Amino acid sequence: MQYHVNGELVPDDDATVTVDDRGFLYGDAAFETVRAYDGTLFEWEAHLERLQHTCSALGMPDAVPTNLEDRVSQTLEANGFADAYVRVSITRGVQPGKLTPQPDVEPTVVIIVSELPRSGIEGNPVWDTPAVVETVETRKIDGKAVPSDLKTHNYLNGILARLELRTAEGTVRADEALLLDNEGFVTEGTTSNVFFVDGGTLHTPHEEPILPGVTRRVVLDLAREAGITVETGRYRPERLRNAEELFLTNTTGELWPVDRLDEREVGSGAVTERLTKAFDERIEEFY
Amino acid sequence: MQYHVNGELVPDDDATVTVDDRGFLYGDAAFETVRAYDGTLFEWEAHLERLQHTCSALGMPDAVPTNLEDRVSQTLEANGFADAYVRVSITRGVQPGKLTPQPDVEPTVVIIVSELPRSGIEGNPVWDTPAVVETVETRKIDGKAVPSDLKTHNYLNGILARLELRTAEGTVRADEALLLDNEGFVTEGTTSNVFFVDGGTLHTPHEEPILPGVTRRVVLDLAREAGITVETGRYRPERLRNAEELFLTNTTGELWPVDRLDEREVGSGAVTERLTKAFDERIEEFY
Repeated sequence: MQYHVNGELVPDDDATVTVDDRGFLYGDAAFETVRAYDGTLFEWEAHLERLQHTCSALGMPDAVPTNLEDRVSQTLEANGFADAYVRVSITRGVQPGKLTPQPDVEPTVVIIVSELPRSGIEGNPVWDTPAVVETVETRKIDGKAVPSDLKTHNYLNGILARLELRTAEGTVRADEALLLDNEGFVTEGTTSNVFFVDGGTLHTPHEEPILPGVTRRVVLDLAREAGITVETGRYRPERLRNAEELFLTNTTGELWPVDRLDEREVGSGAVTERLTKAFDERIEEFY
Repeated sequence: MQYHVNGELVPDDDATVTVDDRGFLYGDAAFETVRAYDGTLFEWEAHLERLQHTCSALGMPDAVPTNLEDRVSQTLEANGFADAYVRVSITRGVQPGKLTPQPDVEPTVVIIVSELPRSGIEGNPVWDTPAVVETVETRKIDGKAVPSDLKTHNYLNGILARLELRTAEGTVRADEALLLDNEGFVTEGTTSNVFFVDGGTLHTPHEEPILPGVTRRVVLDLAREAGITVETGRYRPERLRNAEELFLTNTTGELWPVDRLDEREVGSGAVTERLTKAFDERIEEFY
């Protein structure tokens, strides 16, 4: 496999960063996960905008290379991947001194890819079965400590949440961990946004304390186009456990129905199926 | 310079990790900063214990190599460093799958060193002048999101705090950023603990929401040995701004007097000087 590091295609075995890179030392880096459908990047502009936003908030507004999309395409072509997962990372690189970031940035730009199955109406999702989800004790990092709309290499909050799903035998009890905020309201999964249906209305937590997912926004648009009533708000986990339908969204998983939340059966239904069909139709246009 | 990566000494230019390493992807790693005085590691047992604690909390209890101290010594010898800064990092390495950590860990172990000046009574501190400190808007991550006693590669909370010290011209207004918790109480600096003297009593924030610094504990011990009254508690920043004396502690900076906090002159005094002398005497034993 070929990855892309600092402007060059390199075999994945040779794709490295120096241990002095701030991306390694501190997780001082922005990233995006993008999906390619039949060679075309889905919602590239939205991902690029969020990547730019994260880099700006990290004080490195000029770190995103102007030819980033070309670099991604080149990587996909080198591997012959039409349907793929793409991870673009931009770190603050190596700098003199210790923790204080210097304004002069020579970023490290890394593109990692892996092949995915064909999607859309005639394809298959990346998941095999509906998700099992568990609410965890680990709370979502407050936006006053690290703004929730930044997508960065600091992922231990989510990793600690996922570790709670580990059984004594070392197996994993659930597919995704649902994080609450400090006041006990639902925020999001570690790598997904969450939606539920109640009285035929589609609900999802407000943007404020969560990462504004690209797939989340696409699903909200599709719902409005389909005439489904949409509400955003702050919800207690009980609302989700008692919902008619429940699903997760993210770039690779697209819409992922949730079978069980905290041992309660929830599952799919008419709204989830309608939105999944609308999403698949949208994706099918790429083929 | 020679670094140490996965059991081997390597020139620092060749010291790399693969971009698939979870230490790079997620900051999924523990670390310690240790100081060597005349070839001997200061408070090695305390650092090793905290490293073990962090690794255990991250679900990789067996990741710390049994010969870690030998690896560090070997690295110092290879470089001919007697007085040095040592950074030991242990990442979860490369694993199959995505975010969920697997119990089977082949850790990546990285040792970075750089030379420091001789310390102790006859030596010099790493800092040139007393510190200028500023309280920032960025709040310390709550322990319910990421426990504050873990020392990890997720350092963006501190980096965002340091970014607040940057002026429009790209210079830096202060040496250290002081973080408050969500309720507005003082926690610590981004890479230091904070102490103040009020009515002759030495104060420092409780262990609960902070990283229990090794130098902090040494200073508390030295204070008690010197008969100085010690109190820990929860403090508003006003208490520190109006203190008689104010100083920071960490492994490389040892005791660092604070000249100004938020534009208020504070500075050193009898207690800081006595503790600095006691610390220097303790260090002088290494030479």
